[in-house]
Amino acid sequence: MAAPLQGKTVIDITTNISGPSLTMILGDLGADVIKIERPVIGDDSRKMGPLWEGEGVYYLQINRNKRSIVIDLKSEEGKELLLSFIKDADIFVENFRLGKAEKMGFGYEQLKAINPKLIYCSLSAYGQSGPKSSKPGYDAVVQAETGIMSINGDEDGDVSRAPVSILDQGSAMWGAIGILSALLHREKSGEGQKVETSLYETGVFWTGYHTLSYMATGKEPVRMGAGHAAFAPYGSFKTADKEIMIGISNDTQFHKLSIALGKEEWIKDPRFESNISRVNNRNALNKAINNVLIKKGAIYWIEKIEAAEIPSSIIQNISSIINNPQTESTMMFKQIDHPLIAELKLTRLPVRLSESPLEISKSPPLLGEDTISILEEKGVSESVINQLIQKGVIQIKKELGSVYE
Amino acid sequence: MAAPLQGKTVIDITTNISGPSLTMILGDLGADVIKIERPVIGDDSRKMGPLWEGEGVYYLQINRNKRSIVIDLKSEEGKELLLSFIKDADIFVENFRLGKAEKMGFGYEQLKAINPKLIYCSLSAYGQSGPKSSKPGYDAVVQAETGIMSINGDEDGDVSRAPVSILDQGSAMWGAIGILSALLHREKSGEGQKVETSLYETGVFWTGYHTLSYMATGKEPVRMGAGHAAFAPYGSFKTADKEIMIGISNDTQFHKLSIALGKEEWIKDPRFESNISRVNNRNALNKAINNVLIKKGAIYWIEKIEAAEIPSSIIQNISSIINNPQTESTMMFKQIDHPLIAELKLTRLPVRLSESPLEISKSPPLLGEDTISILEEKGVSESVINQLIQKGVIQIKKELGSVYE
Repeated sequence: MAAPLQGKTVIDITTNISGPSLTMILGDLGADVIKIERPVIGDDSRKMGPLWEGEGVYYLQINRNKRSIVIDLKSEEGKELLLSFIKDADIFVENFRLGKAEKMGFGYEQLKAINPKLIYCSLSAYGQSGPKSSKPGYDAVVQAETGIMSINGDEDGDVSRAPVSILDQGSAMWGAIGILSALLHREKSGEGQKVETSLYETGVFWTGYHTLSYMATGKEPVRMGAGHAAFAPYGSFKTADKEIMIGISNDTQFHKLSIALGKEEWIKDPRFESNISRVNNRNALNKAINNVLIKKGAIYWIEKIEAAEIPSSIIQNISSIINNPQTESTMMFKQIDHPLIAELKLTRLPVRLSESPLEISKSPPLLGEDTISILEEKGVSESVINQLIQKGVIQIKKELGSVYE
Repeated sequence: MAAPLQGKTVIDITTNISGPSLTMILGDLGADVIKIERPVIGDDSRKMGPLWEGEGVYYLQINRNKRSIVIDLKSEEGKELLLSFIKDADIFVENFRLGKAEKMGFGYEQLKAINPKLIYCSLSAYGQSGPKSSKPGYDAVVQAETGIMSINGDEDGDVSRAPVSILDQGSAMWGAIGILSALLHREKSGEGQKVETSLYETGVFWTGYHTLSYMATGKEPVRMGAGHAAFAPYGSFKTADKEIMIGISNDTQFHKLSIALGKEEWIKDPRFESNISRVNNRNALNKAINNVLIKKGAIYWIEKIEAAEIPSSIIQNISSIINNPQTESTMMFKQIDHPLIAELKLTRLPVRLSESPLEISKSPPLLGEDTISILEEKGVSESVINQLIQKGVIQIKKELGSVYE
């Protein structure tokens, strides 16, 4: 019952969100992820708020199942240390701006010369070519650039970013898909290769349905709140208390909804007889539904609508997910021992494998927590480790400071 | 230069969005995807609007690199046909509601008995356990259920769904990650296994940063429009014409922005001296920035802000992506021959592999386009094919009707 990537080593020099999200996936799949961090500060996400016992929540969320080693990659000895790790690594991941890895001596060709079986993954904001390729970019900025923000939010309101990191985490997932594919290719051919993905390309891909709709119709996609251009009724409706979401994609469901709401006459109404006619009479339909729903509370209606097997839900807030019976049944949160935080619960990856199960076995490391054990494993002697510490090339976890000089 | 999954066969009985998105990924990675569709109607997404020459845009977007065979899986002979395909398949994907595959005779244990090396993937709305597990669910409904809608949109506006299918496509990506991992496990062990993912689990995972923030602080996450709880300035700002997005995550960037906007005095302003103080004085800061930006147009400001290397973008609409030089440089759209649509351009997957490149080599098939060629490949004789057609067990593409009875 070994995890799928057990025995594989990942050298991870990424920071912030997208790169560490990618290597977290590899770690959850069983790889040994060696996270190389810069001295003193480490990964910027360690200080991205809110903080929990001094640890950034962003950092905590995406760095379990990794070992932290602090190396100053700007120093010659630090560079040599990294290159020595590459010799028997399987995967290398970087998320620098275009050209920086090469300048530092860690470009694809440079590492391939050391280890031709290496899978080298570059994760960037805008991709490896084009006028924007050397620019910095964050999730929300690239959401603006790829049109996602223009279609997100209330019809009459301001533009909004999608409130989860669909480009940072999305590109991390594409990177993982690329790396796993490259590992399969290596099983057959013995050769490593370069894998590339970016936030921008991920954003363009997310909007594929909208760009293709535009090419098909010439109509610019617009903000529709909770609605959907292709279906009606589809959206958020007010009840006497909470709002509920109802999604109807075919006539059978619409007939069931009409009955559940005590409005059988809608079934014969020519305005509502097909999805296309319902889409064309969306406003009248939404108004008619709202007039019914406003008379009772959300729980009353959801029970009726769910009993009719119609996809629907109360609009839940974030805190309600945590103790939702469905979340508990699917065991989405896993409690994990952490030296500073008493009750750290992390979200597992949303995929299960029956014969090579995934696990969260190691809490997000403190800065330099594993510096010594990693170097010892690599055969570096205690005296050399002490010299490197004194030169500031490496750094160890503070509490361990007394053991080594 | 063979694609990573070349030589692998996928038996795909999924419909709508999530399942077909998953098998599209496998097809783009080089697998032979045999898409089994029901007679007459085929995959529901074929009629999900807008239509383009009669083909649903949703269908077109996520069904390239597949072969379509029409089989009535409710008939005994149809079932036998499917089971005969399983013998030498590598991967099977279904997205029925819990228990339905078993009832039809295509449960995991049933197919494993035929082919122990098979990788069997179930993609569902709510997962394989829990009170909701047998319920239907769509992307937006599960967005409501997992709290995503509650934090999406304008602060003062109505709730909105994330406008791209982050649960349908997201769960498809997790399914692909699971299947690729299972293939790697099979390379070592020779055994197949079951892979499971769902929209609900994917939604809970997307919100990981927010649930963890809630656990850390006890504060309920709320809608923030284009803003971000952890950073300031971060959001959408009005200029004399278009809106622009600016994302600042550290002091250096804020100093550069202050200079670019001709407001060096902000650097010394105690309200703005650190990210935390800027977050606490977010409203005053946003107002000050808006007062400057409103005086000139978006292009003027973006040039200044980009020159200062600050992540920023005009809020672009969907159509502008298509001819954006960055999209062209990264070759995100690929023109593909289609029998009905003259200029079909599809979005490639946002990942590149240098030695085993991905390709879009086959346009989304017409219903039953490959029924005959697949059956011939499997050694089914012309006379049996004709009998199956006459019994309604299989169906072929209409234009080919004259060749076979």
